[in-house]
Amino acid sequence: MSKRIAGLVLLACAGAANAQIAGTGAGIVTSSNVTLFGVVDVAAAWGGGSIADRTRLVSGANSSSRVGFRGVEDLGAHLGAGFWLEAGVNADDGTGATSNTNNQPVSGSGSGGLTFNRRSTVSLMGDWGELRLGRDIVASWRNKDQTDPFSTNGVGTTLPHAITIAGVTAQRASNMIGYFLPQALLPGVFGEAQYYAGENQSGSDGNGWQARLGYANKTWGLAAGYGLTKYAQTATLGDTQVWNVGAHWDFGVARLTAGYFHDTVKQVAERTGTGYIVGAVAPIGAGQLKLSYSTYKVDDLGDPTARKLALGYVYNLSQRTALYATYAHIDNRGPSDAALNGALTAPGSSSNGVDLGLKHSF
Amino acid sequence: MSKRIAGLVLLACAGAANAQIAGTGAGIVTSSNVTLFGVVDVAAAWGGGSIADRTRLVSGANSSSRVGFRGVEDLGAHLGAGFWLEAGVNADDGTGATSNTNNQPVSGSGSGGLTFNRRSTVSLMGDWGELRLGRDIVASWRNKDQTDPFSTNGVGTTLPHAITIAGVTAQRASNMIGYFLPQALLPGVFGEAQYYAGENQSGSDGNGWQARLGYANKTWGLAAGYGLTKYAQTATLGDTQVWNVGAHWDFGVARLTAGYFHDTVKQVAERTGTGYIVGAVAPIGAGQLKLSYSTYKVDDLGDPTARKLALGYVYNLSQRTALYATYAHIDNRGPSDAALNGALTAPGSSSNGVDLGLKHSF
Amino acid sequence: MSKRIAGLVLLACAGAANAQIAGTGAGIVTSSNVTLFGVVDVAAAWGGGSIADRTRLVSGANSSSRVGFRGVEDLGAHLGAGFWLEAGVNADDGTGATSNTNNQPVSGSGSGGLTFNRRSTVSLMGDWGELRLGRDIVASWRNKDQTDPFSTNGVGTTLPHAITIAGVTAQRASNMIGYFLPQALLPGVFGEAQYYAGENQSGSDGNGWQARLGYANKTWGLAAGYGLTKYAQTATLGDTQVWNVGAHWDFGVARLTAGYFHDTVKQVAERTGTGYIVGAVAPIGAGQLKLSYSTYKVDDLGDPTARKLALGYVYNLSQRTALYATYAHIDNRGPSDAALNGALTAPGSSSNGVDLGLKHSF
Repeated sequence: MSKRIAGLVLLACAGAANAQIAGTGAGIVTSSNVTLFGVVDVAAAWGGGSIADRTRLVSGANSSSRVGFRGVEDLGAHLGAGFWLEAGVNADDGTGATSNTNNQPVSGSGSGGLTFNRRSTVSLMGDWGELRLGRDIVASWRNKDQTDPFSTNGVGTTLPHAITIAGVTAQRASNMIGYFLPQALLPGVFGEAQYYAGENQSGSDGNGWQARLGYANKTWGLAAGYGLTKYAQTATLGDTQVWNVGAHWDFGVARLTAGYFHDTVKQVAERTGTGYIVGAVAPIGAGQLKLSYSTYKVDDLGDPTARKLALGYVYNLSQRTALYATYAHIDNRGPSDAALNGALTAPGSSSNGVDLGLKHSF
Repeated sequence: MSKRIAGLVLLACAGAANAQIAGTGAGIVTSSNVTLFGVVDVAAAWGGGSIADRTRLVSGANSSSRVGFRGVEDLGAHLGAGFWLEAGVNADDGTGATSNTNNQPVSGSGSGGLTFNRRSTVSLMGDWGELRLGRDIVASWRNKDQTDPFSTNGVGTTLPHAITIAGVTAQRASNMIGYFLPQALLPGVFGEAQYYAGENQSGSDGNGWQARLGYANKTWGLAAGYGLTKYAQTATLGDTQVWNVGAHWDFGVARLTAGYFHDTVKQVAERTGTGYIVGAVAPIGAGQLKLSYSTYKVDDLGDPTARKLALGYVYNLSQRTALYATYAHIDNRGPSDAALNGALTAPGSSSNGVDLGLKHSF
Repeated sequence: MSKRIAGLVLLACAGAANAQIAGTGAGIVTSSNVTLFGVVDVAAAWGGGSIADRTRLVSGANSSSRVGFRGVEDLGAHLGAGFWLEAGVNADDGTGATSNTNNQPVSGSGSGGLTFNRRSTVSLMGDWGELRLGRDIVASWRNKDQTDPFSTNGVGTTLPHAITIAGVTAQRASNMIGYFLPQALLPGVFGEAQYYAGENQSGSDGNGWQARLGYANKTWGLAAGYGLTKYAQTATLGDTQVWNVGAHWDFGVARLTAGYFHDTVKQVAERTGTGYIVGAVAPIGAGQLKLSYSTYKVDDLGDPTARKLALGYVYNLSQRTALYATYAHIDNRGPSDAALNGALTAPGSSSNGVDLGLKHSF
């Protein structure tokens, strides 16, 4: 019988944790395997505001903490199959992130238990692209992620993601049928279309569709996204429409990003939120310097507007492990009271925040 | 330090997902290992009824979506140990299936978080059979599963499973001590006995026992199951008794199955439900054609009776991946209003349903 | 394409499940790997008391049932990184153990879904020790565990753990920053310090810090622990202070342990609980004989005091698998009504309990 031998010894999986947001379709799978992967990222976080400051530990301020299983199978004949089950983890307290079974505003499911809220899909892939069924990221969100130097994580998160009015399907949706264009269709062109069902009793609540089309080469890229989720019109809810464009240009010394975002909620008194971001990531030493400026304005009474400056440095100890520090400042205008890291600030006042963290992916 | 290397590359695990329902005892374990396994199965499902139709994505219409860990250890001296932790996944939205801590009608536990609801056991195995402790499938259910060409999954599910009156322990029970006969006792003979505890304050609520005994050779098999779960008698609940028989015959061109099922709930006004199934699975090309006819009748006022015809084809892209299509029709008699895939139909009206899905196991 | 091959075949992981309570800092990591590990432990448990007896299946009566993922990475330059995600499992019914997001008495999170309640951490390790962020065991608890022959599991559990008044942070805390001394600082010296945040709206509720310092060589060891968790003072809650000392001496024929434990809750009428344990573990044949005597007394009206004698034998079928039997007897004095395995006993009456179980680790 075996002695004290480590069980399930595996090779390191560098960078795999971010692979799910590449957004481009699948090529042909060339071998069959299953991968266990994840990220554990915890930071000490401070937030300051005019009413109350806050100090706490947070999870995923550089990369969302998670654990998952994924795999692909080569079916031959230019066909492949794959699955992806990825659970969000609140690594500061061990609980799981909630999912949403029916794309409704009030239906978080999981109550702190682990769910595959981040992604739960099965795929069939071929020369014609990828068919993907299950819960996944919505097409329009990818532009928010890919134009944000902070990848929508932590105190530096882009405002068009952090304070969007676009509701529960702004980032992910359940009960989805998605299609991705093949990588080889036209050099550099990528695209996807999605339909998702709310499966609610009340008509088409939570049903929706999204699409994204883009082009990228080694130096620059451009993509446009659109999404529409249906809800019966009330005083606080209605059809939610999102459109946006994102672009990046890699100058070598720095990678610049820019995005424009437009969200509309067709409730009885229609609301529109608009924002943009400009960002830069510069490789410096063993790490990256990150800088972004983003805004988000809602056409409510008084035109609440927030503007955010974020500055961060990620020091890579390896391809899997990093120390990071981020500083962000929010400038509120009108009745806007956006605050950072759990602080409270008065309408029109500012807020500051700092993350100091350690990220390890596997 | 290692570069971009895929983490935890593993071999494919064909068909493993169905191994837990074989229902026969353990042989001697010959090596020590741990296996990660699972199924991700999502289908577009349509249901039609006289009141309302429904279209949605569903999970596990061919094989229940799941993720699990299991392993065996060779202890020498004709002894082995094993464990099995298997969590049901709603792959269309990423949530977990609920478990039941005390075998009571109103105690789903998990709230959408992952639980090892499908199986959570530790085993000791020897020439004398297998001792298995934890949560597991009840003995009497195996005949429902093994006589159903659709394995109690999806729109084609056998009616004696889908609309049974046998309650919360009809398929699984917690707090169980189970014993399986050894495979080598008598050639072809298999059997098991189980005791489970409700662990409720009110007397013996949720306590029960089950047993199954059968014979199978390469051509045909026959098994009988029995179960009794205790509940204090009320107007809607009482001791729940199940007995059934199942048989199969493999003709080469097709495998025929038949089963008879008898459920009794000894509430104040005792209820009895009875049903049967005849089914066939025929290998055709790279797949299987499946056909079944099942019924279930309850002796309530008006003798509500449902009859179901189900027809399906599974196209195997590999041993792990399949596309499938199933059509089913329910014919209701009396006050029966059984409907398919979330549709609503009036008493005595019919219902139709279709599943179109993709299954991948790992 | 591969045929029926077992997926993810791994080597056995003997004893790994208990590694997280070693309590000493990290040495330098020498290779990069990820480990899947766990325990499935189920016992038939009987408890007897003057009011009501109880028979049920329980999980983890020898070693807490769990499943987890952990790994380390060699960063070079005498640095290492690591993560640890460990979920408690109620193996008798498949549900998960709850976590606690904010170190408050009433905030169990998970509702039966799996959470990484046992440990959820990311670490950076070097010659200077280990920095550990996330949810983890509190420093002062390790003396309770390491002086108990039954490792605070099952019917034999030491009373200063089983009926402590020290509340929700007596064993673990969330939102923690921990520091461990390096192993090489002084030969045999180990130590750790922790700060954790409640992150509650009401002031510093749930904030706290703990520390432990000790010495051990091959024959004997000694350690002292201290913890303080802050709560706003009410009639039933207040700052909770814990201090304790633990020691062991290995005589070869037996390993003796002793511990003294002192808990104070500074509610309006301050409460103090004190207890001690003396224990012995003797290797006999293929197993261990375990014996312990522990007490816990609270200075409430009538000085409720419980005294417990526990006797157990663990028969190791391998390094990973064991059969075990434990008998325990509680003698209550004054208004104390501590009872075993879910039994109920009257104040001042005794209680008996038995566990008969099977443990398998992987």
